[in-house]
Amino acid sequence: MNVLILIAHGSRLPAANDEVRRLADQLRDHLDGGFAAVSCAFLEIADPSIPAAIDAAISAGAARISLVPYFLTTGRHVALDIPAIAEAKRREHPGVAITLQSYLGASPLILEALAEIALTPVTA
Amino acid sequence: MNVLILIAHGSRLPAANDEVRRLADQLRDHLDGGFAAVSCAFLEIADPSIPAAIDAAISAGAARISLVPYFLTTGRHVALDIPAIAEAKRREHPGVAITLQSYLGASPLILEALAEIALTPVTA
Repeated sequence: MNVLILIAHGSRLPAANDEVRRLADQLRDHLDGGFAAVSCAFLEIADPSIPAAIDAAISAGAARISLVPYFLTTGRHVALDIPAIAEAKRREHPGVAITLQSYLGASPLILEALAEIALTPVTA
Repeated sequence: MNVLILIAHGSRLPAANDEVRRLADQLRDHLDGGFAAVSCAFLEIADPSIPAAIDAAISAGAARISLVPYFLTTGRHVALDIPAIAEAKRREHPGVAITLQSYLGASPLILEALAEIALTPVTA
């Protein structure tokens, strides 16, 4: 059983965290069965934490867990904090394949999205 | 003269801020003359600040400035801080059309990018 966990920073505004939860649901539908489950986790502020989400996936029977950082730049969270959590969980659960995927900001589609946004008229 | 300013949060890691600066350069090329200039600005930590970038654009002759928030969720920065800065600058420069575009996370291409990342094999 393979599980995808979308990792976001976490916001003090509950609506922002709900946005990430909705996105995980949409991603599950979009991947159309590619993963047995798609959940989300937060580095700070909101629940579940990343370790809690990984533990929950393993309790549910996950043999492979893919972590996808919902971050735009290689700041310390992407470069240091999230890899450290992934590595600690790998040591704790050597029988589970925990992979850290590329962070969102590295996708070439970001440039397409920004260009589309820049060219869309808005009322000032 | 219309100017696009890509607004990022700002990181303590200089490499992350340089990533945003490079992205602004790529966006300029990608938009292929759609804007006379594409620059970037940071809400916190890094330079230039958003007000400084807007002032620089106006000094350079901008009549229209499009602000594009390089943010993923509607946290307090997107919902409150950036709109407040835009509104203050509109009051200060009533002759300049300052528009706040949609934030990146609202783009449907984000889902495509995440799906692509999730399905790309990585070495664990």
